[in-house]
Amino acid sequence: MIHVAVLGAGRMGQTHLRNLAAMPDVHVRVVADPDARAAERGRQLARAERATTDVEAAIHAPDVDAVVIVTPTATHAHLIEIAARAGKAIWCEKPIALTLAETQHVVRVLEQTRAPFQIGFMRRFDPGYAAARQRIAAGALGRIESFRALSRDTHPPSPKFLASSGGLFLDMAIHDFDLARFLVGEVTEVQAWGAVLVDEHFREVGDIDTAVTLLRFENGALGVVETGRRAPWGYDIRTEVTGERGKIVIEAAQKTPLLFLRSFGFEGDRFESFPDRFEDAYRLELEAFIAALQEGRAPEPGAEEALQTMRLALAADRSWREGRSVKLSEIA
Amino acid sequence: MIHVAVLGAGRMGQTHLRNLAAMPDVHVRVVADPDARAAERGRQLARAERATTDVEAAIHAPDVDAVVIVTPTATHAHLIEIAARAGKAIWCEKPIALTLAETQHVVRVLEQTRAPFQIGFMRRFDPGYAAARQRIAAGALGRIESFRALSRDTHPPSPKFLASSGGLFLDMAIHDFDLARFLVGEVTEVQAWGAVLVDEHFREVGDIDTAVTLLRFENGALGVVETGRRAPWGYDIRTEVTGERGKIVIEAAQKTPLLFLRSFGFEGDRFESFPDRFEDAYRLELEAFIAALQEGRAPEPGAEEALQTMRLALAADRSWREGRSVKLSEIA
Amino acid sequence: MIHVAVLGAGRMGQTHLRNLAAMPDVHVRVVADPDARAAERGRQLARAERATTDVEAAIHAPDVDAVVIVTPTATHAHLIEIAARAGKAIWCEKPIALTLAETQHVVRVLEQTRAPFQIGFMRRFDPGYAAARQRIAAGALGRIESFRALSRDTHPPSPKFLASSGGLFLDMAIHDFDLARFLVGEVTEVQAWGAVLVDEHFREVGDIDTAVTLLRFENGALGVVETGRRAPWGYDIRTEVTGERGKIVIEAAQKTPLLFLRSFGFEGDRFESFPDRFEDAYRLELEAFIAALQEGRAPEPGAEEALQTMRLALAADRSWREGRSVKLSEIA
Amino acid sequence: MIHVAVLGAGRMGQTHLRNLAAMPDVHVRVVADPDARAAERGRQLARAERATTDVEAAIHAPDVDAVVIVTPTATHAHLIEIAARAGKAIWCEKPIALTLAETQHVVRVLEQTRAPFQIGFMRRFDPGYAAARQRIAAGALGRIESFRALSRDTHPPSPKFLASSGGLFLDMAIHDFDLARFLVGEVTEVQAWGAVLVDEHFREVGDIDTAVTLLRFENGALGVVETGRRAPWGYDIRTEVTGERGKIVIEAAQKTPLLFLRSFGFEGDRFESFPDRFEDAYRLELEAFIAALQEGRAPEPGAEEALQTMRLALAADRSWREGRSVKLSEIA
Repeated sequence: MIHVAVLGAGRMGQTHLRNLAAMPDVHVRVVADPDARAAERGRQLARAERATTDVEAAIHAPDVDAVVIVTPTATHAHLIEIAARAGKAIWCEKPIALTLAETQHVVRVLEQTRAPFQIGFMRRFDPGYAAARQRIAAGALGRIESFRALSRDTHPPSPKFLASSGGLFLDMAIHDFDLARFLVGEVTEVQAWGAVLVDEHFREVGDIDTAVTLLRFENGALGVVETGRRAPWGYDIRTEVTGERGKIVIEAAQKTPLLFLRSFGFEGDRFESFPDRFEDAYRLELEAFIAALQEGRAPEPGAEEALQTMRLALAADRSWREGRSVKLSEIA
Repeated sequence: MIHVAVLGAGRMGQTHLRNLAAMPDVHVRVVADPDARAAERGRQLARAERATTDVEAAIHAPDVDAVVIVTPTATHAHLIEIAARAGKAIWCEKPIALTLAETQHVVRVLEQTRAPFQIGFMRRFDPGYAAARQRIAAGALGRIESFRALSRDTHPPSPKFLASSGGLFLDMAIHDFDLARFLVGEVTEVQAWGAVLVDEHFREVGDIDTAVTLLRFENGALGVVETGRRAPWGYDIRTEVTGERGKIVIEAAQKTPLLFLRSFGFEGDRFESFPDRFEDAYRLELEAFIAALQEGRAPEPGAEEALQTMRLALAADRSWREGRSVKLSEIA
Repeated sequence: MIHVAVLGAGRMGQTHLRNLAAMPDVHVRVVADPDARAAERGRQLARAERATTDVEAAIHAPDVDAVVIVTPTATHAHLIEIAARAGKAIWCEKPIALTLAETQHVVRVLEQTRAPFQIGFMRRFDPGYAAARQRIAAGALGRIESFRALSRDTHPPSPKFLASSGGLFLDMAIHDFDLARFLVGEVTEVQAWGAVLVDEHFREVGDIDTAVTLLRFENGALGVVETGRRAPWGYDIRTEVTGERGKIVIEAAQKTPLLFLRSFGFEGDRFESFPDRFEDAYRLELEAFIAALQEGRAPEPGAEEALQTMRLALAADRSWREGRSVKLSEIA
Repeated sequence: MIHVAVLGAGRMGQTHLRNLAAMPDVHVRVVADPDARAAERGRQLARAERATTDVEAAIHAPDVDAVVIVTPTATHAHLIEIAARAGKAIWCEKPIALTLAETQHVVRVLEQTRAPFQIGFMRRFDPGYAAARQRIAAGALGRIESFRALSRDTHPPSPKFLASSGGLFLDMAIHDFDLARFLVGEVTEVQAWGAVLVDEHFREVGDIDTAVTLLRFENGALGVVETGRRAPWGYDIRTEVTGERGKIVIEAAQKTPLLFLRSFGFEGDRFESFPDRFEDAYRLELEAFIAALQEGRAPEPGAEEALQTMRLALAADRSWREGRSVKLSEIA
């Protein structure tokens, strides 16, 4: 039995609380949120013993083995450091931080303290991506030749969210950058172009809503990543990896197994956004974290993975800002 | 909070125990199984207080509001009657019984005792079928013209299971018969043909492994149901309803959102059988049962639904045996 | 070079004329139609030498090797007989006739005269069905277990056509009956149910617009055929054959390779009716006829195939009318 | 009736000859090829009057209205000029030439002579792309946000072909560049990356076999084009255009309408290469050319389209060679 403190009981926190509550080997001891009502509601969801507004106290509680951090991004680094120094295992929503320096600092702390750590790159746990990784690792594609990803959110985020998002590359494209590393390998160079096509509000905050990025992989393969903040036809995620022997496509076309045909057209239920498309992945990533703790293995993906994927997003961001290709070696 | 006794901790029982354990409004008090080890393992799965080999005592326990019956078919009617007379709410795997007389007796007991009752026709809770029902009820198809269903199991069942299954129509086709009633309406006449094509063992126990059945609905629509005990390409379930304005197809083509293309072919993960295809439905049917209890509504589908669908399966069985079309009015 | 007379220059005749005009080894000598303007328009389409209103003279023309009969159904038998006795090769749109006696008479004439003859069961030449037949013949499915076909026309036919169509089984279901024989083998027994759901006009002419038919094959397999006169979502044809080793599905989902996704729905171009769905098949069946003549082989499918498929349609018709299953041996 | 000379009777020439032979309004007068046997075989295919090895004489023949040029690329410009000065209408396989200067020279000649001219960008006539263009022009997508194309040949071309192909961008990616202009509009800047991953032979001739290219459109939209010389899973062409209101996907998934399912996988017939994927487009582009001549309209796409698309390919080629983004204004 792993005894857990959940930090943050907002929308994503509730998802994790429900998932933790359903795991037979997990006991949620305490739910912490500065908003007392959110904390209490979270406590009920997880059938936890205690709710508190004192997040740091929840970390230090002696009956807590592991913390699950679902607080605002700006607090991640600080809370990880506290938990690591308190000897707790840590699961944290991505990203660790919005700057490289802060992320590197956290990686060092985690190395020093040897605290078990897992970052919330949930797509790696989606059954489609996980199966793709397995097949590729088993050589199904032979030498990899290309990586192709697109992600389009159904609706643009709220202006409030936007202000602290870190921008299109660090907030959104980072998921496809992580899949590129997960499925193909390390990237050595990127070239990104961006545009504001969806909403002028993005320009006002110095951000973009549409981007295309070229990737050059260490193994010679080439990649493209498309990122967009609007898809009125439904959440749009598709990833392809090709090699000398075949091609793997990861795409969830329909939310429910129903097609409605009428007057020369047809309709299916499409996914609304990441919470429904990756419902299973959110559960599976926490199950993997708990399983690693129980079996004494290092959880995956760890802080180093978080750091390397972040460097890729930063390189794309710089490439877009400076209008030139950027080598990963420049991001240090 | 609903306090539950789970009766039966075999494979299906474990599925229900896991689902119950994850529901915030459910407290599993006791898991009962004649096999003490199965009961104890079930207790752990559900984090229940007690395990017992005394099934009837579990029903009568004063701290139990509702029983979930997942025992062998032959025991269903008896346990339902005990629970109903003990004033408990009842959820039971299908079928109530393998004979009409026994089923009718249970229906009467449930009417007399007014015990809340839900039968495990889980397909009604699959997101695809549920959405189909909603669209049809909303008039999306206009007047219904046809119903078309096929179900093929990946592998034939074991000889041991077969002997007490009730036969192809009562054990397997009954799911499509229930969908026919759920999506289109009452059936007035059936004509069924059967054959042994998969394994001679079916013939030895007086059963068949392949069947086709015509349905005539009260509203004039026509239907066909195909049933088979083998599908080496993967669990094969497809249902179509057509009407004057459109057509609805319910089919889950892939288990995971991944396609692998190689040498002019392609592969996807297909479902193995009902436990993976209807994983969500098994959870949703119990959630619906609990929600109905909490809200004081009669759970759906109830005993009368179980009885009417069973009459349809019995009519098909008689049609096959007697080589003639059978009117539902003959099954009384 | 095969020298051809085309009899009948209506809508279907024009399709065949265009296809013949494009074949390098065919020379259309004459186009005959009682309507002089239709004949002349047909002559231009095929770049033929002569147009005439004298159909019989066109058959007897000494520079004509083969006749292509696309006249109204009621004239087929008579024209086939004239052509056979004149020593011409004959291609004829289905059916040979609407009665068994007349069909049997034509079959005997063709046997006596040894005239090469091909019936227009064009679906056998559709690349999907042809490939299915090849794979099945090669053993891809192992022992066949089931046949499943549905055909739904987009719009009901005109009342005028209906009056002389021969009824739902002989006019429309006959295509699926022929595929049943083509893909699985001979049928020994049928059971058909019918209904009027689309338009009361069908009832007035003693016809039905919706039917479901069970088939029992000589090799033990079971089949279902669904037939309907309305499909507002577009021409709907789907055929499945299953066996111990696999399943073959023949279905053309989209007319053009384009999907349009918008507001949680999507649209593709669907086929309007048989002329667009089977455009290639109409060309390929005539190419096969010409190739057989050039190579001195008997064209396929011949008169015996036409007769056997017709017996199947007649059995279904009788089954529906008499409300009982009908053995093929009754149709003689 | 349009009287045509066909220049070149190789593999592609034969395709065009067959298509021309099937057009009721076309009379192929002469087939010219330096290889007398090829010319004669072509004459038979098209049922033409004459075969000749004197290509220029065929152009000048007084009974010829239009020439169809299917000779090796290096001869296109010269033959176009001769035909234009001879007052003939011209249809020519792409490209006009492999250098910008030569292409511009031809464009000027065509302007001076006012000779009707059509370039063989056949994809514009594929029913999928043509329908996409129509829907986009009708505003179905609203403001265009992105263009996404990939083309992968099943097998790499022969070394012999490679030497005179013009390279990956001018020979192959040019089709997707033309679609970009056809579906979205003019491009102002490109960034291309290339690699040799399929076969070292490409490197030896200074070419690449894999490329990714970013496009920036005048209307603000962004695009990516992927190009590859290998796809062992079958000819791989997919194009997507997204806008504020929807997304259009052009993709032909299967060659024949057949799926074969077996042992948890499935197979369909995939296209082998452009001749089968674009069989209809090859016919439709020539039909459009003939129709334009008959109706006195300028054929489309004309020389200016050929020139602008070629500039895009040249820009991509330069971007790859110089390792920097290239503005279209640099290519003059």
